[in-house]
Amino acid sequence: MRIVVLAGGIGGARFLRGLKAAEPEAEITVIGNTGDDIHLFGLKVCPDLDTVMYTLGGGIHEEQGWGRAGESFTVKEELAAYGVGPEWFGLGDRDFATHIVRTQMIAAGYPLSAVTEALCARWKPGVRLIPMSDDRVETHVAIEVDGERKAVHFQEYWVRLRASVPAQAVVPVGAEGAKPAPGVLEAIAEADVILFPPSNPVVSIGTILAVPGIREAIAEAGVPVVGLSPIIGGAPVRGMADKVLAAVGVESTAAAAAAHYGSGLLDGWLVDTVDAAAVAGVEAAGIRCRAVPLLMESVEATARMAREALTLAREVGA
Amino acid sequence: MRIVVLAGGIGGARFLRGLKAAEPEAEITVIGNTGDDIHLFGLKVCPDLDTVMYTLGGGIHEEQGWGRAGESFTVKEELAAYGVGPEWFGLGDRDFATHIVRTQMIAAGYPLSAVTEALCARWKPGVRLIPMSDDRVETHVAIEVDGERKAVHFQEYWVRLRASVPAQAVVPVGAEGAKPAPGVLEAIAEADVILFPPSNPVVSIGTILAVPGIREAIAEAGVPVVGLSPIIGGAPVRGMADKVLAAVGVESTAAAAAAHYGSGLLDGWLVDTVDAAAVAGVEAAGIRCRAVPLLMESVEATARMAREALTLAREVGA
Repeated sequence: MRIVVLAGGIGGARFLRGLKAAEPEAEITVIGNTGDDIHLFGLKVCPDLDTVMYTLGGGIHEEQGWGRAGESFTVKEELAAYGVGPEWFGLGDRDFATHIVRTQMIAAGYPLSAVTEALCARWKPGVRLIPMSDDRVETHVAIEVDGERKAVHFQEYWVRLRASVPAQAVVPVGAEGAKPAPGVLEAIAEADVILFPPSNPVVSIGTILAVPGIREAIAEAGVPVVGLSPIIGGAPVRGMADKVLAAVGVESTAAAAAAHYGSGLLDGWLVDTVDAAAVAGVEAAGIRCRAVPLLMESVEATARMAREALTLAREVGA
Repeated sequence: MRIVVLAGGIGGARFLRGLKAAEPEAEITVIGNTGDDIHLFGLKVCPDLDTVMYTLGGGIHEEQGWGRAGESFTVKEELAAYGVGPEWFGLGDRDFATHIVRTQMIAAGYPLSAVTEALCARWKPGVRLIPMSDDRVETHVAIEVDGERKAVHFQEYWVRLRASVPAQAVVPVGAEGAKPAPGVLEAIAEADVILFPPSNPVVSIGTILAVPGIREAIAEAGVPVVGLSPIIGGAPVRGMADKVLAAVGVESTAAAAAAHYGSGLLDGWLVDTVDAAAVAGVEAAGIRCRAVPLLMESVEATARMAREALTLAREVGA
């Protein structure tokens, strides 16, 4: 079975670990979000790609969900001693090495997709991880500061401001001109099923879908497309998805998230059992829907979620 | 008193510490060798400038003579886990931060001299440290490997090969087209005395003198120029200066090192007491010479050496 998964950071990475446990024989291609990539200290940092790579490769800081286990922060402390920031972004020494390798390869002319493959040669994530695009796409968030509207990098909004001010718009800058990375459209065309993990529908999966050609390829693939709600009981399970959903005019409910993707894209949608009342509405909108436990409390629980998604895919594909 | 010092790495840095102790009120300008600069992992590394900065700023690894005290090597180990080398160059985590700041500033358009000033704002070395040039000069060493002649970067010759094969030539690539960094010629013109520490006459001070304009400015400054021999009893005190002296056809003796600079440049020369027999020959060549203890065993011993150099400068200047 060939499975394509669109993935953001923590949610996508944890779902993928469950999916691998559920379907160890499947050939999984992950199309990773690069809209939250950022240049820090002159280095190219790809938080979502690295979270997937570290999580599936056994290097992740488990409790935190991002960054490396057993991390130290000597380089960052030294940079601060030079008065060089930002200090709000947590780059550890082990993590720095990844960004140094990546930046060096990019400077040498390698596209991000080739760099990602090279990094994965070490981590052996057990999936094929491809960035959504080799072109630079940068998610910016429009906010109002002292009555003035300004755009900040997604990481600044998310990590520094902790989404504490309302997002007025979310713009994947550069997306219109970006091309899917080599292998992305091919993987979609050859997929048996396409999954949207319980990731942020706007800044994670939404950014991937904003790369011209990817949404169309998924819609035209002719295979089941099944998503899992990142919203449980009216609130995001993790993170601050509600803040950016509001910015695009979407209510923070499991049903609204499904409607945001639309029946032209989604064939099936899983909501949590606490949102069972939403099932009928989602189905009325033309999307097959089931209510199952959606908390990724363990690899086993996540594997059950992945199995439910694949079962629903078989149903809608029948 | 305004003192200009041409400095390589360890020898120059230790001498400067003694000079500062001997003349705490002097205004010292250090013209630093950048011929051994190297790009590693996409970062610009300036070993000699950093050795001076760390030594005078209190951050040096004392026993080693280079690199930071209390250093860790997490980044380097992680790079090696990615299969990315070279492993023969010892870059620690603290040190990495310096190179990250430098590389980021250079990418932003700052010349190396401005970057060095910015880094020194943290270290407060108590001297004005200026790279010899903002232009790239790279010392290459010609060697023979399996009957074939090839040129390697100085660091590869020195650190990886540990000067274990004969150097056939030492070439400061790019020197002819390099310009002295802003402030270099001005400092020389305004100096009351110019000192050559017991640094390598070929790959440290020789490289600085290879930048067009610097040798001429020193010769024309009309102030005493005094050097200290890095060769004691026919062998370098530290390092492998004899290997590169041979490459330029110079014997490894205190007298030959003085002759290498020449009486057109040097007014005075200090040799160690064990080389007292060389004094007459050096003087016959037109360079005032004294034999004094030249082992930099402590800051105090080095301060005495600096005082001897300044005394000799007063003598030749009288």
